[in-house]
Amino acid sequence: MSPRDPSSWLLLCRTVRFGDTDAAGVMHFHQLLRWCHEAYEESLERFGLSAAEIFPRPRWPEVRTSRREEERPEEALLPVALPIVHCSADYWRPLRVGDPLAITLEPRRLDPGQFEVVYSFCSQNAKVARGVTRHMAIGTGDCRRCGLPDPIQRWLEASGLAAGVQPL
Amino acid sequence: MSPRDPSSWLLLCRTVRFGDTDAAGVMHFHQLLRWCHEAYEESLERFGLSAAEIFPRPRWPEVRTSRREEERPEEALLPVALPIVHCSADYWRPLRVGDPLAITLEPRRLDPGQFEVVYSFCSQNAKVARGVTRHMAIGTGDCRRCGLPDPIQRWLEASGLAAGVQPL
Amino acid sequence: MSPRDPSSWLLLCRTVRFGDTDAAGVMHFHQLLRWCHEAYEESLERFGLSAAEIFPRPRWPEVRTSRREEERPEEALLPVALPIVHCSADYWRPLRVGDPLAITLEPRRLDPGQFEVVYSFCSQNAKVARGVTRHMAIGTGDCRRCGLPDPIQRWLEASGLAAGVQPL
Amino acid sequence: MSPRDPSSWLLLCRTVRFGDTDAAGVMHFHQLLRWCHEAYEESLERFGLSAAEIFPRPRWPEVRTSRREEERPEEALLPVALPIVHCSADYWRPLRVGDPLAITLEPRRLDPGQFEVVYSFCSQNAKVARGVTRHMAIGTGDCRRCGLPDPIQRWLEASGLAAGVQPL
Repeated sequence: MSPRDPSSWLLLCRTVRFGDTDAAGVMHFHQLLRWCHEAYEESLERFGLSAAEIFPRPRWPEVRTSRREEERPEEALLPVALPIVHCSADYWRPLRVGDPLAITLEPRRLDPGQFEVVYSFCSQNAKVARGVTRHMAIGTGDCRRCGLPDPIQRWLEASGLAAGVQPL
Repeated sequence: MSPRDPSSWLLLCRTVRFGDTDAAGVMHFHQLLRWCHEAYEESLERFGLSAAEIFPRPRWPEVRTSRREEERPEEALLPVALPIVHCSADYWRPLRVGDPLAITLEPRRLDPGQFEVVYSFCSQNAKVARGVTRHMAIGTGDCRRCGLPDPIQRWLEASGLAAGVQPL
Repeated sequence: MSPRDPSSWLLLCRTVRFGDTDAAGVMHFHQLLRWCHEAYEESLERFGLSAAEIFPRPRWPEVRTSRREEERPEEALLPVALPIVHCSADYWRPLRVGDPLAITLEPRRLDPGQFEVVYSFCSQNAKVARGVTRHMAIGTGDCRRCGLPDPIQRWLEASGLAAGVQPL
Repeated sequence: MSPRDPSSWLLLCRTVRFGDTDAAGVMHFHQLLRWCHEAYEESLERFGLSAAEIFPRPRWPEVRTSRREEERPEEALLPVALPIVHCSADYWRPLRVGDPLAITLEPRRLDPGQFEVVYSFCSQNAKVARGVTRHMAIGTGDCRRCGLPDPIQRWLEASGLAAGVQPL
């Protein structure tokens, strides 16, 4: 739960795929925002958090499951949702199918109920793009703003320490 | 609820958009399946069914809603889900950005708990592609197969009559 | 080419589709950027510009075309590309499947080689989200910045007049 | 170029991401076809083929590249395109965010100018879905059917040997 080396959860890789491109031959702009969210999910996973602790996972429909699974406590309705309230992206170079990407994440708490992640995309040692997502904690019971959930707090803290100790 | 002219809900239009294409300059194959599902949704809507009668619409999170909306009866958990259990597509001609599409839907009941929709895509009087989606009714309570819900039955029946009376 | 009523090309409609939502039951954030680009394309089309005048449309592969089409002059390699160099979005309310959307576009020239489009999304008389895309003109021959192409200039001018005359 | 162990290029992993799900809480059906194509691309890459040998990579626009790159021979217009002419998918169990997936690919030549890939998806030792893509070789010069390109032939042959030697 507290890995020594933050590069294991804050530095990720992916490759531009054919379906990410458009008829101009380069990555179609909104795919980058999808990559950002997938990088955020992969970072939480590598840090040691399960998707069930962070993201809603409604139980039905359990198509063709012969017996209903035992209720697992972590799968009860999450008390806090973390919807994205803002995002942005800057594109500095075109990306083509097969281009390798290194993605560096810089998560930081904005206030007790909001955090932001900055995603820097590099390819072949050049900065190619940058994305930002801002997330707000909302209580799923009363639909009001609330504090960030513990698992996210731990990830933000460890990432902040990482940023302080060594620039990624 | 029983429109006279089936072409109003079984014949739809759309245009190939730039983000639908890939670096080969043509529509990327899996976008067609997205178009099929969107055509299915538009057909139900034009027939007179609301999304809330057919698709799950969880209530939370109601971000920044000043007061909680009155419960509307149709928004209770739907008793039946209609997951897709099979799909396929055939591609006969490449489609480029700006190409206009006419989409003809042929829905039909396969058995009391399943239906299929065939989607024929034409552009400038040529058949360009064909898609199929197969949907199975599943009770959301016990996760077992069940009968198709009434609204879908009505849509299938009216579409079947349409097919019998006049070839679209 | 010079419609009287700008609402015909600057005010568009669409409906939230099931595939646009995620397991939280609401529109997944990056779909909004796709909607923005599709609204931009639809606006150009309604204004009277063909996709071939604005977007690259490589000629091959012409799968199963019995004879090669006559070259149409507008399909030669476009001399100017308009890649998106920046985008952003703000989300004020969750959107669920079936929600109707009214999209108002406000395009404006930033400098001789760049323009921006602001997209305001309303649903049931409430402002629900806002998107921005910024486009830069690049010569496809020398890959340098250049002036905006004529068709885009006409669209920007007519939209600017519209904004001056009547607030949309 | 001829790895000993076919599991290195015919057995791949991925995780269901939040944006892959819909308001029913499970993977939205057409995402599976995207996963199939991305698995096909990753398989070719792991086998030792570069994207530039298989997929079109138009050169422009080279936004903000200070000098034009040297022409690399492999980036000339590819003589053969491999459009998908058919695809299908079967869904046996719902997939939720965070579910781990093992994807087994079975590529095979159908005739001198066509091949097919079958993708079997397993999660936690259960078969959850299956996808198929069929690809046809088309000469980009004359837009007629032609033989499969050499790199794809090598990948198909090595995969066939693998299938013969050991069932994956």
